[in-house]
Amino acid sequence: MSTEILDKEDIVNNSEFLKSLVTKIRAYDSYGAWAKFSDLYLLKPFIKTKEEKKKIDAHDDVDSKTLGLIRVFYEAIAYVIEQKTNIFTTTAIDISHEGFGRALIYSGNIIILEKTLRDVQKFGFGSFEKMDEEGKRSVEKAIKNVEKFKEFLS
Amino acid sequence: MSTEILDKEDIVNNSEFLKSLVTKIRAYDSYGAWAKFSDLYLLKPFIKTKEEKKKIDAHDDVDSKTLGLIRVFYEAIAYVIEQKTNIFTTTAIDISHEGFGRALIYSGNIIILEKTLRDVQKFGFGSFEKMDEEGKRSVEKAIKNVEKFKEFLS
Repeated sequence: MSTEILDKEDIVNNSEFLKSLVTKIRAYDSYGAWAKFSDLYLLKPFIKTKEEKKKIDAHDDVDSKTLGLIRVFYEAIAYVIEQKTNIFTTTAIDISHEGFGRALIYSGNIIILEKTLRDVQKFGFGSFEKMDEEGKRSVEKAIKNVEKFKEFLS
Repeated sequence: MSTEILDKEDIVNNSEFLKSLVTKIRAYDSYGAWAKFSDLYLLKPFIKTKEEKKKIDAHDDVDSKTLGLIRVFYEAIAYVIEQKTNIFTTTAIDISHEGFGRALIYSGNIIILEKTLRDVQKFGFGSFEKMDEEGKRSVEKAIKNVEKFKEFLS
């Protein structure tokens, strides 16, 4: 195994968010078909280089695979929020076939995370580190909202 | 024109909600192709008898036409709320291809209407009156939330 791969494994193993993302991905594997795949392999579809993104036409319709990646990404954020705050959340994703929309994580009447999404055909992160940062930043933002609206959340 | 049709026209003309729904539907008609269609004609796809609903298989995938009806229905509710409360809202619809999901109308961090949707393949109302009632009831519910969360809404 190359050093590069080992480093990426370290990133995943040291990231609460990326480990949660893997947990959520594996939860979709009702038939155990992905059991043989490594965590890194399962996270790879979330990584897109600038060159790869350039090749994707944002005028094409969004495919269901990309929608699935976006959904599980925000579900993983919600999962970490739930573990840290003990509130129950719902994740809603509304994306037009043109690739524009939003991701919402809410609890009761309170939206604790709203993210506008554009050109979702190109959804992906430049590296595992960048994906981890985006996840962590979203969790932190949401937790601030949980504190702000504490009286309305149970 | 039959008496039955005249009565339905009266229902639409006397309903703030149904008139708003027609306004929102016509807003999608960028090319003016529906200008020749009556309000009643545009509202007809929202009406489904029990027999018509029975014939629809809720195991089929949801078609884009039905998704469009659901979206514009909740956008019309949001439109009436905006007119009555002077707050700016966003409508989000998240429906799985199995026909389960939710409609959300929110403003800032506050969800002012959340509606769980099931078997949306069968989305429709038994009559214009029933559709009007559902619209009005949703608006009233949302306005109560606007009052409850007034301090967080602008």
